[in-house]
Amino acid sequence: MSKAGADEGGAGGCGDSAKQLEAKDEKGGKLLSKPSAGSGWTKVSCPCCFSERVEPLVLVKLGGKVGPETKRWLIKVIGAPQKDGGAALLAHPGEDASGDIIVVSAPRCTLLRAAEELGLCKTYRSGDMEAFSYNDRDNFKDSDNMEVFLTLAERQYIVKYELDGLRVQRDLRIPGLPESRMLQKRDNIWQKLSSAGVVVDTFPLHNRKKLKDLGEAWYSGNQLAQPLDSVNDYFGSAVAFYFSFLDFYTWSLLTPAILGLAISYFSGEVKKEMVDSVSGSKVIINDDDSGPMISGHMLQAMFSMIWSTVFMELWKRRSSSLSYRWGTMNLAERFAEPRPNFYGDLGVNPVTGRVEPLFPEWKRDLRMVLVSVPVVGLFLGLVVLGMMCFYWGEAQVKQLHKDWNSLLSQALLYIPSVLHIVYTNMLGNVYRNVAQSLTEYENHREESAFENHLTAKILVFTFFNNFAVLFHIAFFKQDVPLLRKRLASLLIVSQLVNQVTEVVIPFLVDRFISAPHRTESEDDPKEDKFRNQRTLPVFPGLFAEYIELLVQFGYLSLFSCVYPLTAVLLLINNITEIRSDAYKICNLFRKPFSPPVANMGVWQVAFEVLSFVSVISNCWLLLLSPRLQELCREGGLSSTNVLLLAVFGEHVLILIKFIMAALIPDEPDWIRKKRDQMEYTSMQALKEQKLQPEVS
Amino acid sequence: MSKAGADEGGAGGCGDSAKQLEAKDEKGGKLLSKPSAGSGWTKVSCPCCFSERVEPLVLVKLGGKVGPETKRWLIKVIGAPQKDGGAALLAHPGEDASGDIIVVSAPRCTLLRAAEELGLCKTYRSGDMEAFSYNDRDNFKDSDNMEVFLTLAERQYIVKYELDGLRVQRDLRIPGLPESRMLQKRDNIWQKLSSAGVVVDTFPLHNRKKLKDLGEAWYSGNQLAQPLDSVNDYFGSAVAFYFSFLDFYTWSLLTPAILGLAISYFSGEVKKEMVDSVSGSKVIINDDDSGPMISGHMLQAMFSMIWSTVFMELWKRRSSSLSYRWGTMNLAERFAEPRPNFYGDLGVNPVTGRVEPLFPEWKRDLRMVLVSVPVVGLFLGLVVLGMMCFYWGEAQVKQLHKDWNSLLSQALLYIPSVLHIVYTNMLGNVYRNVAQSLTEYENHREESAFENHLTAKILVFTFFNNFAVLFHIAFFKQDVPLLRKRLASLLIVSQLVNQVTEVVIPFLVDRFISAPHRTESEDDPKEDKFRNQRTLPVFPGLFAEYIELLVQFGYLSLFSCVYPLTAVLLLINNITEIRSDAYKICNLFRKPFSPPVANMGVWQVAFEVLSFVSVISNCWLLLLSPRLQELCREGGLSSTNVLLLAVFGEHVLILIKFIMAALIPDEPDWIRKKRDQMEYTSMQALKEQKLQPEVS
Repeated sequence: MSKAGADEGGAGGCGDSAKQLEAKDEKGGKLLSKPSAGSGWTKVSCPCCFSERVEPLVLVKLGGKVGPETKRWLIKVIGAPQKDGGAALLAHPGEDASGDIIVVSAPRCTLLRAAEELGLCKTYRSGDMEAFSYNDRDNFKDSDNMEVFLTLAERQYIVKYELDGLRVQRDLRIPGLPESRMLQKRDNIWQKLSSAGVVVDTFPLHNRKKLKDLGEAWYSGNQLAQPLDSVNDYFGSAVAFYFSFLDFYTWSLLTPAILGLAISYFSGEVKKEMVDSVSGSKVIINDDDSGPMISGHMLQAMFSMIWSTVFMELWKRRSSSLSYRWGTMNLAERFAEPRPNFYGDLGVNPVTGRVEPLFPEWKRDLRMVLVSVPVVGLFLGLVVLGMMCFYWGEAQVKQLHKDWNSLLSQALLYIPSVLHIVYTNMLGNVYRNVAQSLTEYENHREESAFENHLTAKILVFTFFNNFAVLFHIAFFKQDVPLLRKRLASLLIVSQLVNQVTEVVIPFLVDRFISAPHRTESEDDPKEDKFRNQRTLPVFPGLFAEYIELLVQFGYLSLFSCVYPLTAVLLLINNITEIRSDAYKICNLFRKPFSPPVANMGVWQVAFEVLSFVSVISNCWLLLLSPRLQELCREGGLSSTNVLLLAVFGEHVLILIKFIMAALIPDEPDWIRKKRDQMEYTSMQALKEQKLQPEVS
Repeated sequence: MSKAGADEGGAGGCGDSAKQLEAKDEKGGKLLSKPSAGSGWTKVSCPCCFSERVEPLVLVKLGGKVGPETKRWLIKVIGAPQKDGGAALLAHPGEDASGDIIVVSAPRCTLLRAAEELGLCKTYRSGDMEAFSYNDRDNFKDSDNMEVFLTLAERQYIVKYELDGLRVQRDLRIPGLPESRMLQKRDNIWQKLSSAGVVVDTFPLHNRKKLKDLGEAWYSGNQLAQPLDSVNDYFGSAVAFYFSFLDFYTWSLLTPAILGLAISYFSGEVKKEMVDSVSGSKVIINDDDSGPMISGHMLQAMFSMIWSTVFMELWKRRSSSLSYRWGTMNLAERFAEPRPNFYGDLGVNPVTGRVEPLFPEWKRDLRMVLVSVPVVGLFLGLVVLGMMCFYWGEAQVKQLHKDWNSLLSQALLYIPSVLHIVYTNMLGNVYRNVAQSLTEYENHREESAFENHLTAKILVFTFFNNFAVLFHIAFFKQDVPLLRKRLASLLIVSQLVNQVTEVVIPFLVDRFISAPHRTESEDDPKEDKFRNQRTLPVFPGLFAEYIELLVQFGYLSLFSCVYPLTAVLLLINNITEIRSDAYKICNLFRKPFSPPVANMGVWQVAFEVLSFVSVISNCWLLLLSPRLQELCREGGLSSTNVLLLAVFGEHVLILIKFIMAALIPDEPDWIRKKRDQMEYTSMQALKEQKLQPEVS
């Protein structure tokens, strides 16, 4: 570490320069943006990276007991060049050398090198998006201006990526820490510092001006379109993909909503007519009347199936053009460093030739098949068991109440529900920890693989929890009216809860708690403003948002033929949801780090699976529809034959769905061509390159 | 064309040289293998390609009325360098300048360049397979010896590829042909010559010595393993993939065969016991006895499902290692010239930058969806209609016979069957032509895409034709005994027919018709021997072989639980099938051209689809099993509930199948690594290459 000697002085003398800085701040309020060599930032090691403006990107919050020598050492490590085991970033000790924050930024070279390592695509001089190459940087548009070339989210993610990747080059003691905290060779520095309590928090900083502009374009006015590119710029592609999907999904709801309105309008009329006819003659049902009712039900089921397929296929196309547009179509995570928690025997990666921990694929597969799958299955079984116990218990207490009919037994009536809720919540909490450990145990090399496997595990469980009751009603109790009632109440209740938790509460919090905070901080020194951002809660991730959409989509595609107004309610909900989600992420949380991603990952699969299950469910509900059963009875079909017909129909529909999904290409033509072109040029380049040593 | 002036003399003087050649032949019998400059072969244009030995690869048979000036012109075109619009091959006019054959070979440079264009992988000096690059040829193993570097099949395919790719550079009249046969710019020469009757046939030549060696290793002895690498070498990867699959499939049949034997042994015993018990007490069925019978049936169905999944997944793994081994894992058909029949507006290919016909993807998709799918559907409908008419007609004549009971009405009994057979055959023939035209109309750019779409169309139809009756019996008549009888007779009859047509007849033909032919030709001039190969019939392609396997696989996976001995019969059949197929392709047909392929193409999909359908079919058959139904009746389950259970079970099984298919990786680990490595190096190379112009 001591090789980074060039910065020793800078780090030592930052107490003075910080004061200097404050003085400047009072003049222009641009303290950190215009540092001279002695502004408090560590010096850059290469001349090309020297810049007038240093943009504060990430805040590192240190533990309260961290001594100045530890902080100095940390700043040195952050600033040291990569060949000396540093992160080659820029560090600023904040307003006070002994303060508990470090502000981190990144020089141009580090950003560009990391952009290449991550496999980001950027606009080439030809106008196409091409995988960025550091050596070829001059041919990329705007590669001299980092604030245009890389998005804010990318710059901040790169800082995190570099910090997370810090590894000890040889055994060493951290100054100011006890012997027991010795670092061994190849230890991950940032992980060790976190577990030692030196680093408490690392989070990206908001850029107030950009945030204000973004907010105005996003949720303040009455605009219909979201500024997705700006969202990608500010929050990164993971968040931008969520909002793009929300947008696409909401507008796709228009058609089912219109159909649902039409059906419930007409079927209402039909009902009335039926009531009339029934009041006239109780036994004979007019065939002309029952016709439209059936066809409305069937129409909804058929439509729902086709709609969900087409919707998912079109989204895939949109998703791939977005990923081209945002330069994430060619991410090279496989070829980058493994994620910090990845362990294995040290060896030479056969693909990249780098020394890194290796872990055989078959071992991971084995762990998944032999450990993860059974454990997840066990928990799903526990959910079912809980539900069965609940029903059994309910029947018992009802019986008891009937027998005793006392106040005590009336109170007992609530016990099964309470127990079930407690049980479900406890199970959910335990499961979350188990899923985390299981995924950790599976030891995925890439961050995205880890995330996807973790998400998949929690998702299956949550989904099961949400739908087990509905499925139970639909498939076992076979009680369509109850299903309809339940669905309607779920939709309305969940929407009310939604609106309150996502719109009203955030608004109140912002108005009466955050806002006063904000105004008073206008005159504070810049560092305190950064520090203030820590008072905001951590962004909880997109899981809750996605699962909400998934559950919605489930209600819609699985059961909507029972309750045609589902789509209408969802449409209304989602239009407000867009705004409230946007408001929330902008104002109520710390800014999240967001790795560049090429698609929605496992969520896409979840939506697709659901749209398959919807075929089964719709066929089944169609079969249960009392009108259809009546008609069949009139037609002289036995219930077995009707069932056979339904099963046959289901298989045909699934086949049609498969064919439709196969026929609609997942990528627009022009993306496929660009991809081919990339492949072709790199094939050609490979051949050329092999030739080089021969020629030279 | 006239730029190829260097060869004028050579082509003109070949009459003499042919005589010279014959003289040499009498001395050493090695006529075509050791040509001097005047040996009759056109001269090579580059010095590096000059070789002592020229290997005759392909025979071009000219029409009877083709004049010597046309032949001279054709030889010149074949021999001219590519920049002059020639094929850069070597041509030999045969024993006589005015004879009706041209023997074609290829010089080293043409072979190597085409190998690069096709994207063949060859052993690099590092020992890995890498995409061959002409400029880097010296780093590839054996690249100086074409007969080792490229397989015989590859060399011959390259000759065909070059001939097929010949295009006219400017309008021109072919010498010796009427004005009406003028060639326009960019016309495909070989196609025009074929339609003008100048070229009657183009086929690769057998290499007697290699063929003999191959035959000895393949079918003469009692060896169990096939010499697949030699098959790939001699017949190309398409044929080699068929035999590898046949091999893999046959050995995979061992497990179901053993299980089938066990089940039929035990169930036989059980049956006997049952008969005993029934004779004792007619009504009460002993539960202990019926147990194993049911479980045998169920065991077979479950096993059949798991087996077919595992089998297909393992085959995919094997297939990908074979394609690595044979250097076809990285074929660049997309980037090569489009197939000759491809049409479209001339334009610049955005991917490769070459001028070639372009045809928009969406237009092709539209044609498939709006034309091909409905037409194919129509024909399938006609098959069903035919079947229904047949059943109706049969019922009618039976009734008639009952009423009249005369000799005439007895004769009438056969009419429906006869009509149905005639109808089916006619429909089949019409359909084959329709499928060809439809696929041509879809206008696929790549030969392999064309083949796959054509095969898929014919396959669906043939399969439907084969299984419609069985499905009808199983699903509509629900008559398990009839199904069992039918299946057994189909298996035994088709096997007898197979053995006769594929083993006995070929043997007889070879012994009594081909063999005398062969011995007398030993002393003939070489050219006549080549010409003799034309007397053999054209190889009909692998469609019939594959469909036979597919139908077998269908019997096995769809219906085998009804007739447990299916696998045993198939195993016996296939062991002989391997030999008879090998014998057939080696001795009874002309050698086929075989493009390099990376897998079985559409056949793989067909087998996978079948293995999915098998789940449905097995569940259904299980449900029909009389013992199960009896048991359920005893257990007090209504038939509707049993059906529901079966449907539920089917869905669970399909889910399990999906999960199994997803969990078993399609490629072995090491292949995936190699592939990653290739991608990584070409990514790196791309970055390096972009840098080159800057540096130089």
